Amino acid sequence: MEVSRLASVFPEGVFTANCPTRTVLDHVMSKWAPLLLVALSDGEALRWSELRRRAEGVSEKMLAQTLRMLEEDGLVLRDARPVVPPHVEYSLTELGQELAGQLVPLLSWIARNADAMLGETSNTVR
Amino acid sequence: MEVSRLASVFPEGVFTANCPTRTVLDHVMSKWAPLLLVALSDGEALRWSELRRRAEGVSEKMLAQTLRMLEEDGLVLRDARPVVPPHVEYSLTELGQELAGQLVPLLSWIARNADAMLGETSNTVR
Repeated sequence: MEVSRLASVFPEGVFTANCPTRTVLDHVMSKWAPLLLVALSDGEALRWSELRRRAEGVSEKMLAQTLRMLEEDGLVLRDARPVVPPHVEYSLTELGQELAGQLVPLLSWIARNADAMLGETSNTVR
Repeated sequence: MEVSRLASVFPEGVFTANCPTRTVLDHVMSKWAPLLLVALSDGEALRWSELRRRAEGVSEKMLAQTLRMLEEDGLVLRDARPVVPPHVEYSLTELGQELAGQLVPLLSWIARNADAMLGETSNTVR
């Protein structure tokens, strides 16, 4: 029986290996997606250079790849204005705002608890 | 100025490249950690084989690696009973329960919205 028993929390079959939920989970949990979604969460549209600054350490390649993935998932809107020099801005779609609303509390929790988690190996003993 | 401007949401310097918060974010967002944390979120201690079933598709190597990381982070408790045959169970620490409490709503949101995200590329146009 290979049916996921995450069923205790989620409906039967959710997050099984070939379920679309797993694909989306992998996208959302990919290394740079949470930082980019949260960076855009205050509603302000941001340019490439600003996103690169906020997701400190991201390479050009990974930023492009992650933004394209988020755009294809309907989470990020790419607004390219036909001006000279070109002006491209990124913002969250309504769906992206909803998701960012889920991520902000998670990242806030991590921010509060990171030191405890990395500092004390004694944490592993209850 | 390389200071993260995620500061609009989080305190100054959080989630910058060398901040412990970034390390923990990478751990929590790693491919199998969310599924394992959520699988354990109902409080029941689970054996290796059961965790492997719930995180469908995980390799032995990745399961071992992820559990060790979560144990070192103080999120998962490994309980090895000195019996024959050996009996090892995994459960969440108090900190792990807290984190799982943040992940369950996120994964529920993903479960509800995955089809919309993957189905309609028209989502990318607002």
